[in-house]
Amino acid sequence: MNRTVRAGAGELLGSAGLTVVVVGSGIAAQRLSPTDVGLQLFENAFATALGLTVLILVFATVSGAHFNPVVTVVDILLHRRPWSVAATYLPLQIVGCIVGAILANLMFAQPAVSWSTTDRGGWNLLLAEVIATAGLIVVIFALVRTGRSHLTALAVGAYIGAAYFFTSSSSFANPAITIGRMFSDSFAGIAPASALPFIGAQFVGAAIGWLVVRVLFPVASSEPVTLHD
Amino acid sequence: MNRTVRAGAGELLGSAGLTVVVVGSGIAAQRLSPTDVGLQLFENAFATALGLTVLILVFATVSGAHFNPVVTVVDILLHRRPWSVAATYLPLQIVGCIVGAILANLMFAQPAVSWSTTDRGGWNLLLAEVIATAGLIVVIFALVRTGRSHLTALAVGAYIGAAYFFTSSSSFANPAITIGRMFSDSFAGIAPASALPFIGAQFVGAAIGWLVVRVLFPVASSEPVTLHD
Amino acid sequence: MNRTVRAGAGELLGSAGLTVVVVGSGIAAQRLSPTDVGLQLFENAFATALGLTVLILVFATVSGAHFNPVVTVVDILLHRRPWSVAATYLPLQIVGCIVGAILANLMFAQPAVSWSTTDRGGWNLLLAEVIATAGLIVVIFALVRTGRSHLTALAVGAYIGAAYFFTSSSSFANPAITIGRMFSDSFAGIAPASALPFIGAQFVGAAIGWLVVRVLFPVASSEPVTLHD
Amino acid sequence: MNRTVRAGAGELLGSAGLTVVVVGSGIAAQRLSPTDVGLQLFENAFATALGLTVLILVFATVSGAHFNPVVTVVDILLHRRPWSVAATYLPLQIVGCIVGAILANLMFAQPAVSWSTTDRGGWNLLLAEVIATAGLIVVIFALVRTGRSHLTALAVGAYIGAAYFFTSSSSFANPAITIGRMFSDSFAGIAPASALPFIGAQFVGAAIGWLVVRVLFPVASSEPVTLHD
Repeated sequence: MNRTVRAGAGELLGSAGLTVVVVGSGIAAQRLSPTDVGLQLFENAFATALGLTVLILVFATVSGAHFNPVVTVVDILLHRRPWSVAATYLPLQIVGCIVGAILANLMFAQPAVSWSTTDRGGWNLLLAEVIATAGLIVVIFALVRTGRSHLTALAVGAYIGAAYFFTSSSSFANPAITIGRMFSDSFAGIAPASALPFIGAQFVGAAIGWLVVRVLFPVASSEPVTLHD
Repeated sequence: MNRTVRAGAGELLGSAGLTVVVVGSGIAAQRLSPTDVGLQLFENAFATALGLTVLILVFATVSGAHFNPVVTVVDILLHRRPWSVAATYLPLQIVGCIVGAILANLMFAQPAVSWSTTDRGGWNLLLAEVIATAGLIVVIFALVRTGRSHLTALAVGAYIGAAYFFTSSSSFANPAITIGRMFSDSFAGIAPASALPFIGAQFVGAAIGWLVVRVLFPVASSEPVTLHD
Repeated sequence: MNRTVRAGAGELLGSAGLTVVVVGSGIAAQRLSPTDVGLQLFENAFATALGLTVLILVFATVSGAHFNPVVTVVDILLHRRPWSVAATYLPLQIVGCIVGAILANLMFAQPAVSWSTTDRGGWNLLLAEVIATAGLIVVIFALVRTGRSHLTALAVGAYIGAAYFFTSSSSFANPAITIGRMFSDSFAGIAPASALPFIGAQFVGAAIGWLVVRVLFPVASSEPVTLHD
Repeated sequence: MNRTVRAGAGELLGSAGLTVVVVGSGIAAQRLSPTDVGLQLFENAFATALGLTVLILVFATVSGAHFNPVVTVVDILLHRRPWSVAATYLPLQIVGCIVGAILANLMFAQPAVSWSTTDRGGWNLLLAEVIATAGLIVVIFALVRTGRSHLTALAVGAYIGAAYFFTSSSSFANPAITIGRMFSDSFAGIAPASALPFIGAQFVGAAIGWLVVRVLFPVASSEPVTLHD
């Protein structure tokens, strides 16, 4: 298997793994801690912070461990990568997240696909997604552009763990997993009608994050920077 | 004491330590947080994630810190080690896990051996064990084969901490500790009748993990790779 | 944008980010875990420990990641920096913390500014602020003056996470965020009447911390030491 | 101030800091989470794990960051240090832990000294202290004798955080803090009548740990090994 195919397989498997972690721990938390939603979110955040850090460590050398369309797009914009990367990565990220949601449903003996009925509406949740996604982009590329890619796994896991609590939207910050979360009618789910505005807000946040990175973390040379090397 | 004997002693002590951590913190959680099973699992996961990381750090230089038959078997398959390693390690891992369960029982003033009555049946729990074990194998050997063995302690602790929540089986992912957990009728226990299917699922998961490692993390040379060096 | 302007922007953005984390996770915790104040503080401490570590990692190379007037002042005193740094950093830290509180309020659909009504009085809370701030100063500059600046992000996040619980004041330890927290009538807020004594106690603690650092961590040479390099 | 005096000051301050963390977070947890003892212990363990790691990082270069008589004694035995170190360190560790308990009491507006009434009796708690202390000694000196002293801060914090849950005694594992905890009638306290058996069990555990280290982690040369360098 050549390097490009392996990279695609890495994005597919890693995105599936991320969604298994997010949706699976959400179902477990909801079932096992029925009386306190904050405790459910705490358990969900704990599992996601640890799991995401591990997934980035594992797939960093295979695909860069994006698992997230806005990370791929900003990486292309900042580092002059070919747009063909997006053409490969984005569909695999989305398919991976859907497969992960289905696996999580099956592990917890739910129907393979159960459309989420969790309405997540309101301008304030969209503001939260803008902030969450801008922050994620800044965290990743600040470290990459200052030669500290080896810290991204830890930093991204910690960032998302914190953002589950400091945003009102519980920080999806990822269009692919937003789509995947539609497939599970459980704690971490999102009703399809709420998904599109969330994805729009995530791209707005990514654009803001991209600008902040360009201004605060300029890179003198124009050579490509490898993510997570 | 020569190096081989020390390695055996390391697997014995480390496996006992791991089971003390898992079973002991399970008993404490069950007693101290009687009204919320999710909180019990959270306390159990917190203690296990931290304790497992420490145990791997301590015993890495002594025995490789496997504490797990499927890790030993996959290590032999991937890195052309002699099968005699399995003949030494596996019995010591199993004995260690039983001793650890007994010590945990005694620390909490329970009978030294109290057979677990916790039934853990259902195809969905077996699917969870397959996924949990495949993931564990990928995490360990991805890091080993990309020259990042020094991160396995942190990554394995974090992975298991997350997997307690993102799987429906609370992620045993280890045949030796599955046997050990039969010896304690408490939170982390498993009824003997449920143990064999769990172990079967773990070997299936290990095989899948082994394939993923071979495909995604090829190693050019055929020389043995030292685990946790 | 030159380096000085970037440093100011880093302090502004980082201080805003810190306050979004602290106030935002406080609001979420209070809403989602209404029956147990300890659990609210636990969620708040978890999010703050992770978020603060990430923010220091991100802005360390831009501004030194102070986000805190007493850190800037002690840095000037210990390392013979020009007082003009304080003239730039302090106003931006305060403005950043106010902006962060407003953003947190808006994300959770509260009025942009809602003055806190949480009275935090009593000599014992002031003693707690003295201890918390002295400890923070010692942690930061002990690491800086022993050549371990790369550990400050992790250590400061961990310290504040612990100090939320080991002090009776939940460890503000930062005059700028004390001002910012006045702008949100929520879990992490502080009534304006309580803010000034808190800030006074923080400066007393900083002075004690400065003395401890000078005595226990002497630096032979008089050349400036770069924070977080 | 010469190096020896600084070392003594480091042990005094560090031991006081450790007890502030342990006792202070215990009082906070007990007050804020009154209905679930497991949650109290979780909050206490979270604060202690983070705080202990930070304290070891800070004082490692000053005094070796022992804060614990059995660590000092085993360090002398293993590495042929002069017994005069114990004559200096042990009294300062004990005084530091008492001062820390008093500061914690004062921060939470309790009487400076309130003798603990928490009876901690039973052979099974003593077995727990033996195991907890043996484990602590093995963790510290395994890392020191394999050239990984830089990991002790993280490993010891993680170990104690786990041991609060996996032992029935909540893992004191330290004669000095056992004495200090007598001075606070709160969550982390211990009645004076229970303290002496605890301390005896801790020395038994330390002796076992010392033997395990000698057998599993032999050091060829006889030159002293510096703790945490």
